[in-house]
Amino acid sequence: MKILVQKFGGTSVANLECMQRVREKVTDSLKRADKIVVVLSARAGDTNNLLALAEQWSKNPDAAECDALVSTGEQVSVSLFTTLLKDNGIKARSLLAYQIPVITDDSFGRARIRSIDSDALRAFFEQYDVLVVAGFQGCTEDKRITTLGRGGSDTSAVALAAALESVECEIYTDVTGVYTTDPNICSTARKMDRIAYSEMLELASMGAKVLHIRSVEFAQKYKVAVRVRSTFNDDPGTLVTQEDFSMEALLVSGIAYDRDQARVTLHAVPDVPGVAAAVFGPLSEKDVLVDMIVQNTSLDDLTDITFTVSRKDLKHTLEIMAKISHSIGAAEVVHDVNVAKVSAIGVGMRNHSGVAARAFAALTQEGINILMISTSEIKITILIKEKYVELAVRILHDTFGLDWDID
Amino acid sequence: MKILVQKFGGTSVANLECMQRVREKVTDSLKRADKIVVVLSARAGDTNNLLALAEQWSKNPDAAECDALVSTGEQVSVSLFTTLLKDNGIKARSLLAYQIPVITDDSFGRARIRSIDSDALRAFFEQYDVLVVAGFQGCTEDKRITTLGRGGSDTSAVALAAALESVECEIYTDVTGVYTTDPNICSTARKMDRIAYSEMLELASMGAKVLHIRSVEFAQKYKVAVRVRSTFNDDPGTLVTQEDFSMEALLVSGIAYDRDQARVTLHAVPDVPGVAAAVFGPLSEKDVLVDMIVQNTSLDDLTDITFTVSRKDLKHTLEIMAKISHSIGAAEVVHDVNVAKVSAIGVGMRNHSGVAARAFAALTQEGINILMISTSEIKITILIKEKYVELAVRILHDTFGLDWDID
Repeated sequence: MKILVQKFGGTSVANLECMQRVREKVTDSLKRADKIVVVLSARAGDTNNLLALAEQWSKNPDAAECDALVSTGEQVSVSLFTTLLKDNGIKARSLLAYQIPVITDDSFGRARIRSIDSDALRAFFEQYDVLVVAGFQGCTEDKRITTLGRGGSDTSAVALAAALESVECEIYTDVTGVYTTDPNICSTARKMDRIAYSEMLELASMGAKVLHIRSVEFAQKYKVAVRVRSTFNDDPGTLVTQEDFSMEALLVSGIAYDRDQARVTLHAVPDVPGVAAAVFGPLSEKDVLVDMIVQNTSLDDLTDITFTVSRKDLKHTLEIMAKISHSIGAAEVVHDVNVAKVSAIGVGMRNHSGVAARAFAALTQEGINILMISTSEIKITILIKEKYVELAVRILHDTFGLDWDID
Repeated sequence: MKILVQKFGGTSVANLECMQRVREKVTDSLKRADKIVVVLSARAGDTNNLLALAEQWSKNPDAAECDALVSTGEQVSVSLFTTLLKDNGIKARSLLAYQIPVITDDSFGRARIRSIDSDALRAFFEQYDVLVVAGFQGCTEDKRITTLGRGGSDTSAVALAAALESVECEIYTDVTGVYTTDPNICSTARKMDRIAYSEMLELASMGAKVLHIRSVEFAQKYKVAVRVRSTFNDDPGTLVTQEDFSMEALLVSGIAYDRDQARVTLHAVPDVPGVAAAVFGPLSEKDVLVDMIVQNTSLDDLTDITFTVSRKDLKHTLEIMAKISHSIGAAEVVHDVNVAKVSAIGVGMRNHSGVAARAFAALTQEGINILMISTSEIKITILIKEKYVELAVRILHDTFGLDWDID
């Protein structure tokens, strides 16, 4: 029995017309699979409207009640969509998390899936051809509703595919797949036929928001092949899967960028133990996410600490720095919002030296000054002036030959 | 441990301000009860909006999916309201039907409650002082969501009170209680302190829509004392309970009326077996609810059959009569929409003759012509010209001494 898991996001089920298109997709798919699990998000806007209600009702709404509230968004989607399927004579039913059940821990608002009753799912298939499952939601052992956090429907889909084993998981979205970089700023950007989990993780965290990062981690852990494809065409999309040899032939798989960066520098900080903790501890306590961090080698026992944060967090960050700069003895605090970061990602660079050097040389040659650098095993990230972003993306895309397909 | 069940309808929870008023009511009630079960309806308008969605999606929406859809209305109410309670430090949680569970049959859209796990409810009280239960919904043995039909939240409240035993059930609404007749047309109308279940049933079916009729049947069956009272004042309202001696002292307890009547007469129908079935069978098949029926004594083997239907059903009814009148040999079909019915209700009339005669005499004396009469054990219903409705209500109210309180 061939089972397929297909997930459709909020814009794909936004209204009747959209849902009718999804019905066509699912009906067609019954020609290539025996049974289908359809995972749906809430209709576009519904989740935000429900969260706005909660915030109107309380400054600090109870997390468990909030989950019971927002989970109604997916409940509406699955019941409406199943109605459409049944109208066309398809044997279908909706399933809420507790009806399967999809058991999670009790971290309301950001619950983690613990188990899915795959026997129950298979039993439902004796009676139905399509199971329409509410994404984003789970339930605790004692039957309370939980939600998996933003983008959780992707995770629901991958987890269901994992539970059903050797099943392909299709994530339908409004783009054709994963691109080597943003086609809007680089005309030679190319859709990738496949990409490794690890590369996808680095891309996703950079803002190439095709797949939610937790779903990719889940897919990697349970070896679920995930295909990202479009609701609006028949392109096979991009397969997110394990690394293989052909992938390693490619040094760099994709170029990502992120404009939402603000740089903060603490000048001439005495280089004593505990300084980093004194700087980043208070930021972490206030939920400010620090992205890149660079600390220069100490000179005369004084050091510069530079880091980047999201622009919306800058004001808050500077307030915190103003409070602590005196106590840690920093000479001054400066900041710059006209910065952006560009990354080159690829599992291939793991086995090859010189990738970073090639990237730096290419940018420098075009007169782009590099403000900060950070590297990981499969990623090089470079902070530059924001005005150079498009140029830098095109240079790197070209430098690593991403405009020609070697698959 | 004194437990109270309190039900608030859609207008009582329509928005934040309304819910804050309900929170005050519930908080105050914790002074006179140890634990409270709050049963909520969907916010005013929500259920209708959800049903409209279902009808937009399908001409004949699947009943089970429709229940999963509309039940989200109550889910939103209970989670928002619980948020408010918790904000004030009250130990509270929301409960959906499957979390208790409230088990029903699988008649989706009009399910009947089979059982409520009262042990589970009592166990929740070890941790919480207020349980906020979603009204209107239940779940089947295999965990599918059902709804109890229009006005089902009243039934939910009474059923929960029955399950918890010797508990009073308060139904909060926008009127102070049950009146002897409509105060808008009879200035001497008086709020009743108590009323028998049977009287309430006759009043409710006549359009005195304070309590949903099924909830009264439920209350009668399980001997639950129901108090109808206002969200907007502190009046003790009206207690709906079993008959007692003081009630029987009163011949008539209330006067009801209904303008939504249209009269249809089939003239000179041959009086042969099967004629009534030929007339009312097709109406029943098309879900036309026939209210009063009178068939005159046969004269020359010809009879007149007169009945009333709701005005919205008149056109449909006349179409059906046009089809069958020839085959049953009726001379003609006439109708009249300028009619209304007035009823006198009271358990007291069961033991006393002459109530009907007194009613007829009083109306005739004021020149009101009686078009049709039907009587039951505790009710007399009279059809009159619509223009006399207010006058007839006041005459009967006065005739049976309802303007003075004998309790």
